[in-house]
Amino acid sequence: MCQLLGMNCNVPTDICFSFQGFSARGGMTDHHSDGWGIAFFEGKGCRLFIDSKSTLESPVADLVKHYPIRSMNVIAHIRKATQGLVSLENCHPFRRELWGRYWIFAHNGDLKNFRPQLDGPFQPVGTTDSELAFCYLLEKLRREFADREPDSELLYAALARSSAEIGSYGEFNYLLSNGARLYAHCATNLCYLVRKAPFSEAHLVDQDVTVDFSDVTTLNDRVAVIATKPLTDNETWTVIQPAELLVFHMGEACRPESVRRV
Amino acid sequence: MCQLLGMNCNVPTDICFSFQGFSARGGMTDHHSDGWGIAFFEGKGCRLFIDSKSTLESPVADLVKHYPIRSMNVIAHIRKATQGLVSLENCHPFRRELWGRYWIFAHNGDLKNFRPQLDGPFQPVGTTDSELAFCYLLEKLRREFADREPDSELLYAALARSSAEIGSYGEFNYLLSNGARLYAHCATNLCYLVRKAPFSEAHLVDQDVTVDFSDVTTLNDRVAVIATKPLTDNETWTVIQPAELLVFHMGEACRPESVRRV
Repeated sequence: MCQLLGMNCNVPTDICFSFQGFSARGGMTDHHSDGWGIAFFEGKGCRLFIDSKSTLESPVADLVKHYPIRSMNVIAHIRKATQGLVSLENCHPFRRELWGRYWIFAHNGDLKNFRPQLDGPFQPVGTTDSELAFCYLLEKLRREFADREPDSELLYAALARSSAEIGSYGEFNYLLSNGARLYAHCATNLCYLVRKAPFSEAHLVDQDVTVDFSDVTTLNDRVAVIATKPLTDNETWTVIQPAELLVFHMGEACRPESVRRV
Repeated sequence: MCQLLGMNCNVPTDICFSFQGFSARGGMTDHHSDGWGIAFFEGKGCRLFIDSKSTLESPVADLVKHYPIRSMNVIAHIRKATQGLVSLENCHPFRRELWGRYWIFAHNGDLKNFRPQLDGPFQPVGTTDSELAFCYLLEKLRREFADREPDSELLYAALARSSAEIGSYGEFNYLLSNGARLYAHCATNLCYLVRKAPFSEAHLVDQDVTVDFSDVTTLNDRVAVIATKPLTDNETWTVIQPAELLVFHMGEACRPESVRRV
């Protein structure tokens, strides 16, 4: 199994604090040491760092911990291999382009006997069930909407349907972002919090580190953090319900009412 | 204009020495300071580092200079913006997936009035003529071969035709790799050398740094380095001819005879 970390904000924000706690789970406070990755959107651009080493041994993880890259949408992943060897091509997040946007995807869970027939332009490079599910999600979007990006409600509805379908094959916790919104689908383990004014102190679960967010924010900032397990022990995390697909936009969690019953 | 650097080898090799000289051109010995990027294949996997800062200011460039990532196919680029703003989405190399492989592309030159009608799955994210040309190259490959990757001679012939077509719009020096081979198309400025036994010393043009490759290689190693301008001043670089498409495989430059007249 793996662990997921996501961030969605209304102003470009660095994820150094959360990543510090999260990356400790790559062999120090937990055993997810079969590679890791993190993707940062900066406008339409996207940086993707991946490494098949653990976060503790990776010089790239060290860079990410100390270089404050500011982004409004971030997805990170630490891997405990279940399907697919330990190799660079099997590290999450995965990235593809659709409708002139990059899409980033990371998965926690295990899909059994999931062997969709892919006949579109998205083919897995590696051998994980996760990348296969990502390619299938994108192929279904492209099949439904062809070359036109739909509005956000139609997109949500399509993702909700595909997520339910893929979720019938096993655990399908995932984070997905196109740089505008961040989608979080829960099967078993996913929770989130939204930090906004009045900001206060947060203390990591995995390391004895505290940050006072009132020192580093403005009154209008809003930052949603999504994780497999809570990253801090003095804040209230909301558990996402099984089979629920949340969409985060400008640091807020939304469940589009009009499409919840689709 | 921009500068290109590529490496193709028969054993995984680090590019630290060449990148040290090349990256100096991002503001120190030359003026290509509008972003940079480098991609390393590791098997089918691929790491891509990009930054809209210059190589001199980028903490990521610092990492690449000092972290010996070993790869058989590398493409790097430093940018002097001509078309498209200075932004992350306009940094080369660009990456897409086709036939279950990542493809990496970087371009030096300027295409005038190049506005192909793209109706396939590859759409530019940024606003450069370069990414547009890359999407067009891939769309043409997919149109010609559908979902089946062709053999290397057919692929070369198709790329040679597309390169000639795109080259009619302006300067089209590029490096392209799918992790198996590295293609180098010259319009105006591109040269290469192949290092093999007996190895000797090489001295950079851009910095007073010498390395003795006989200390760090074995007798069977073969490393081709391709660059816009020679990186060393005591080795013989071969100039690639205008309109020539070379393919590098296992550290050797080839011009497939059977398809040269296509």
